[in-house]
Amino acid sequence: MIVRPRLHWFRMLLVLHGSVLPKIAFQLMLIAAIAAGITLSGGELLGWKVGLTFVPFSLIGIALAIFLGFRNSASYERYWEARKLVGELLNASRSLTRQYLTWVDHPVDARDFVYGIIAFAHALRHQLRGSDPEPQLRVLLGAERTKRLVTARAKPAMLLLHLGEMLGQVGAQGRLHPQLAARMDQTLSDLTAVLGGCERIANTPIPYTYSVIVHRTVYLYCFLLPFGLVGSIGLMTPLIVTFVAYTFLALDALNEELEEPFGTLPNDLPLDHLTLGIEITLREMLGETDLPQPTAPRHYVLT
Amino acid sequence: MIVRPRLHWFRMLLVLHGSVLPKIAFQLMLIAAIAAGITLSGGELLGWKVGLTFVPFSLIGIALAIFLGFRNSASYERYWEARKLVGELLNASRSLTRQYLTWVDHPVDARDFVYGIIAFAHALRHQLRGSDPEPQLRVLLGAERTKRLVTARAKPAMLLLHLGEMLGQVGAQGRLHPQLAARMDQTLSDLTAVLGGCERIANTPIPYTYSVIVHRTVYLYCFLLPFGLVGSIGLMTPLIVTFVAYTFLALDALNEELEEPFGTLPNDLPLDHLTLGIEITLREMLGETDLPQPTAPRHYVLT
Amino acid sequence: MIVRPRLHWFRMLLVLHGSVLPKIAFQLMLIAAIAAGITLSGGELLGWKVGLTFVPFSLIGIALAIFLGFRNSASYERYWEARKLVGELLNASRSLTRQYLTWVDHPVDARDFVYGIIAFAHALRHQLRGSDPEPQLRVLLGAERTKRLVTARAKPAMLLLHLGEMLGQVGAQGRLHPQLAARMDQTLSDLTAVLGGCERIANTPIPYTYSVIVHRTVYLYCFLLPFGLVGSIGLMTPLIVTFVAYTFLALDALNEELEEPFGTLPNDLPLDHLTLGIEITLREMLGETDLPQPTAPRHYVLT
Amino acid sequence: MIVRPRLHWFRMLLVLHGSVLPKIAFQLMLIAAIAAGITLSGGELLGWKVGLTFVPFSLIGIALAIFLGFRNSASYERYWEARKLVGELLNASRSLTRQYLTWVDHPVDARDFVYGIIAFAHALRHQLRGSDPEPQLRVLLGAERTKRLVTARAKPAMLLLHLGEMLGQVGAQGRLHPQLAARMDQTLSDLTAVLGGCERIANTPIPYTYSVIVHRTVYLYCFLLPFGLVGSIGLMTPLIVTFVAYTFLALDALNEELEEPFGTLPNDLPLDHLTLGIEITLREMLGETDLPQPTAPRHYVLT
Amino acid sequence: MIVRPRLHWFRMLLVLHGSVLPKIAFQLMLIAAIAAGITLSGGELLGWKVGLTFVPFSLIGIALAIFLGFRNSASYERYWEARKLVGELLNASRSLTRQYLTWVDHPVDARDFVYGIIAFAHALRHQLRGSDPEPQLRVLLGAERTKRLVTARAKPAMLLLHLGEMLGQVGAQGRLHPQLAARMDQTLSDLTAVLGGCERIANTPIPYTYSVIVHRTVYLYCFLLPFGLVGSIGLMTPLIVTFVAYTFLALDALNEELEEPFGTLPNDLPLDHLTLGIEITLREMLGETDLPQPTAPRHYVLT
Repeated sequence: MIVRPRLHWFRMLLVLHGSVLPKIAFQLMLIAAIAAGITLSGGELLGWKVGLTFVPFSLIGIALAIFLGFRNSASYERYWEARKLVGELLNASRSLTRQYLTWVDHPVDARDFVYGIIAFAHALRHQLRGSDPEPQLRVLLGAERTKRLVTARAKPAMLLLHLGEMLGQVGAQGRLHPQLAARMDQTLSDLTAVLGGCERIANTPIPYTYSVIVHRTVYLYCFLLPFGLVGSIGLMTPLIVTFVAYTFLALDALNEELEEPFGTLPNDLPLDHLTLGIEITLREMLGETDLPQPTAPRHYVLT
Repeated sequence: MIVRPRLHWFRMLLVLHGSVLPKIAFQLMLIAAIAAGITLSGGELLGWKVGLTFVPFSLIGIALAIFLGFRNSASYERYWEARKLVGELLNASRSLTRQYLTWVDHPVDARDFVYGIIAFAHALRHQLRGSDPEPQLRVLLGAERTKRLVTARAKPAMLLLHLGEMLGQVGAQGRLHPQLAARMDQTLSDLTAVLGGCERIANTPIPYTYSVIVHRTVYLYCFLLPFGLVGSIGLMTPLIVTFVAYTFLALDALNEELEEPFGTLPNDLPLDHLTLGIEITLREMLGETDLPQPTAPRHYVLT
Repeated sequence: MIVRPRLHWFRMLLVLHGSVLPKIAFQLMLIAAIAAGITLSGGELLGWKVGLTFVPFSLIGIALAIFLGFRNSASYERYWEARKLVGELLNASRSLTRQYLTWVDHPVDARDFVYGIIAFAHALRHQLRGSDPEPQLRVLLGAERTKRLVTARAKPAMLLLHLGEMLGQVGAQGRLHPQLAARMDQTLSDLTAVLGGCERIANTPIPYTYSVIVHRTVYLYCFLLPFGLVGSIGLMTPLIVTFVAYTFLALDALNEELEEPFGTLPNDLPLDHLTLGIEITLREMLGETDLPQPTAPRHYVLT
Repeated sequence: MIVRPRLHWFRMLLVLHGSVLPKIAFQLMLIAAIAAGITLSGGELLGWKVGLTFVPFSLIGIALAIFLGFRNSASYERYWEARKLVGELLNASRSLTRQYLTWVDHPVDARDFVYGIIAFAHALRHQLRGSDPEPQLRVLLGAERTKRLVTARAKPAMLLLHLGEMLGQVGAQGRLHPQLAARMDQTLSDLTAVLGGCERIANTPIPYTYSVIVHRTVYLYCFLLPFGLVGSIGLMTPLIVTFVAYTFLALDALNEELEEPFGTLPNDLPLDHLTLGIEITLREMLGETDLPQPTAPRHYVLT
Repeated sequence: MIVRPRLHWFRMLLVLHGSVLPKIAFQLMLIAAIAAGITLSGGELLGWKVGLTFVPFSLIGIALAIFLGFRNSASYERYWEARKLVGELLNASRSLTRQYLTWVDHPVDARDFVYGIIAFAHALRHQLRGSDPEPQLRVLLGAERTKRLVTARAKPAMLLLHLGEMLGQVGAQGRLHPQLAARMDQTLSDLTAVLGGCERIANTPIPYTYSVIVHRTVYLYCFLLPFGLVGSIGLMTPLIVTFVAYTFLALDALNEELEEPFGTLPNDLPLDHLTLGIEITLREMLGETDLPQPTAPRHYVLT
């Protein structure tokens, strides 16, 4: 996530920070060069005058608006749904911690349980980003409990089963009324829904064919556009074509980042920051005072 | 589902993979041929000069944008709701398994129950795709339990009743506190909602009249367009008309795949992959180690 | 609901099936005749040259796009919400049946209870369509239980109260644990929400003023359009004006059907089919084998 | 709410019923007069030829479409959410009545409780419309119970507390199992959510700045438009300008009604009708037969 | 929140109240000055005739409509979701208070518990607005209970834990049936969800890159626009350019306020007013009569 700098409106026009320009610079320069060539040749291709006007571009604009508008909405919705799921992870973690601390008789073993919740949050992040959870799990759960998990294919799911087993034992010891056990079971199901929701977004992209159609339409549009403009705006053609191409390609590049919100690109969700935040708040609820510091943005980017 | 290949932006313009071009190639060629004929005749039809300009097409564009934009949103929403339902199937299956393993006393018969959940997931897939569930049910449930099911009209619904009966027996044996039985009953109702939701999407398409109206408008638009363009862009008419037709027909073809998301076309949901994934995670929760491999994409397509 | 025929793209352009053309044929012909008259008079009205161009129509297009796009979305959302409510009716009916069969001790009287649920589904349909439920209720519930219902103003609501009373008696007999009675009470509340949701859609149309505004704008637009086109496209004016009018009026006619989704027009919900489907699946869960056949489409239309 | 008359398409063009024309008649006439003046002067203002064309208006159209489209969607969503809340009020009232009648032992005091629910529905309506609830509360609850309420600032909230206290007493008397008391407590929380939701919509309008921006843009657009059209369409300018202004101002006037859905304007929700409907259905559930008649529309308007 | 004044349509065109004009006055004047300069020079820049027409601007309009339309919807949705969360805070607070007063035996200590809920509402506001909660907490909770909270990092979360502990004690004293304790635990989880939802909106802005792209496109568009218009509308150019710029910049400025809804700008949520409203209604439920007055708008603005 890019931390919003409070910039004067004028400086915001110039800085590169938070911009996707570097990603699309090559394509923009290529399009600008083509437009410049066509302008210099007066709209001729190999000596043949290409008689395009702006009319086709305003007709193609209908389809383009549908494609880009849809893809932008769908990407952002994926991003925001992912953020809601991580928020729900925080909520359910806090609720489960509160429930253990207040409904279980003599919750002397609360630390074991709550560290299991923290481990779930981190394991989920590792699964979504394809990193190795073992070192962190070892710190949180100890070597014994970690051993069983690291051989599991679906580590976060096994951690939830592990938490369920701990609750089952507490219930069997008569330290938790079944009614309140049922409430905690509900919260475990909420965590299961968070896990499944994140897996859904990570495993099912926006249908790839959308990208193919958008991609083709945008580039063909930009490559043909100079022929359509040179007759009426002459030397301004390269500037305007590059401007138009910038609006389409910048949106496309941003959407690419947003539609896979669990990645590590600048506009992706700051999972490191968010899961550490969960760890901090749960450990504070346990009464710990030696809490880690939240991660800080580097170059305005939180990861 | 088409697995997203990480392609260089330039190669993505050319490959056929993930494209709907083969589906609409004939129509595009027909439109291109008609446009070429009209261009060669200078916009005359049977010797009569058809005096169209671009104006009507920009007016019809209003309706076209509404039709295509709506249909695209509605198709994608059906696709994504279907995906959420399958995700909810995963969530409820995991929760129900965890509940059986942690709340039932001495869950030695857990395998029977959990294999019933797995059988439900597969039976749902078979119902949605119209395939025969009997062989797979026989493997999962044994011949005895399968016999009663295969004569049922609504097999997944009968499987849920079967799971409910198992819970009822466990409760009658005093091995499950009624409070936690109620929680598991809730999870069974969640599975019932998944079943009903999938049946709803499968049985109720987007009203057919939308397809008829879109279809007629798009084709009439594309067949008339050359007359409207030939006067201003001359020889470029066939290229531009084909380009415009491509944007409309490609979107139409993609939407046709998405609006019936349980089919087996490339952009449909990978039900084989997803239900096998449910089987794997539930069997891992049971402690089994001899787990099947997830299905892999063939030619970049997961079914 | 119109059952989707799998037609070749070309045949779909021609058939009348699923089309709203018959509904709007008169208006289209009137508009075509007016356009033809204006074309023949060269855009003159009573000898006065009406100097319109296409410009006003592209400005009015802004408002028209908002009106039609909004009305289309709102109509379809009503249709789809209604479909979801009927789906929820299926889900809650199946869950309630499963709950009675598995949680009530010795459910020998299950048939009475489940037939009450079936009667609720049919009574809801009769209320929504304004038909007389008495004959069907008599078959399902017997003369005795029907007598009390037929004098009620809100028959489905009284049926739910009746089901609640049966549960209350079963509970008072000690045949149902209060915890599981609470779950079944939840399912009854779900059915109450279905009833209220259907009544809301049936009783509260899209604000009528939208129809008035859309109606006036569309017709005035279509009647004025020939004056705006005849100067530039001449003899093609009647064809194009009729085409434009078709796109607007066809969408309008379809939306009229969708916004009252419980009616019996071709694009309305197939309530007969859906409630009979609920009856079949519940009776199968009861173990009955003498099940009715699902209703089949007549002329591709399910009612 | 305006009751939809089934009008022939042609008559619908002419009648004033359901129209917002009277509200915007003055503004439309003013705009028409200005447009006529500008047309007569040939587009000159104080002797200076104002050289506008249609181009600026099609550019401003972008912003206008966003403003009007957004405001329309937001207004309708407020209207529809308000309608859903009133529907939820009906659902929760019916459920709570059913629960009292079926789960409480010897519910001889059911009338007191159910009349408390009816009083809540009416008190909510009075709060939303700023009318005095005292006379109606006195009829429903008697002088004693009303006294405590009428001095309360938040009457409906105090009524819900009162219902909760009645349940608490029934529970303390051992006439209601705690499990089923919990279910009824859930339904009371649903009613609390209805109350809060209605208060939210009533107290938080669409941000006022939207109205200011839309207002300014629409009027400036309409006042300038004659200068942009008179050059190309001459004498038709006043007609077209008035038509364009009608589409914008009519939508604006309708949105003003919808965005405050609890008012008493023709397109607002028929709260009188809906709350009386709740009273009727609850009293029928109590077994009363002397039920009031539902309110009927006056001049096609239900209040 | 700006309180809606009931203004005559004409006065609304003129007043500054509720307008964002002051915020964008400098930019508008700059754009007007540039447009005036370009108009006076006849569209020449440093003696070179810049040959732009309106065509590029209508093409860029496609992207601009997507950007502005999307950002506007996303900002408003954040605003409205934030409002719903504060409404849910009211609902859950009322429900929790009702539950304590009606289900706990001899609720003589209700004041302590309910003041804890009030403290939570205020602490949440202070966290969202970055102000110091200590003075207010001290008044509500007393010095003792405040001490533990003020050293906490996540004060509202610790307050919810504190409320949970109070419930746990009441339960351990046998004054609250576990079933109803479970219901109250549910309401505490609802408050946890409100807290997490508000934190999500406050900590995760709309991806910053959107602002950058919108910003650049809008300003470049406005700076180039005079060149595109001066050829056709001459001296009207500065007026029209400023008008177009106003529509874009005003929307942009409003969206900036709405997308951070917890701030203290005029269009932000009136958190002071809303949390005081929660305090008033809860204290009235406790039976207190010495209630504070609701905050009143200052210069039509509620904070």
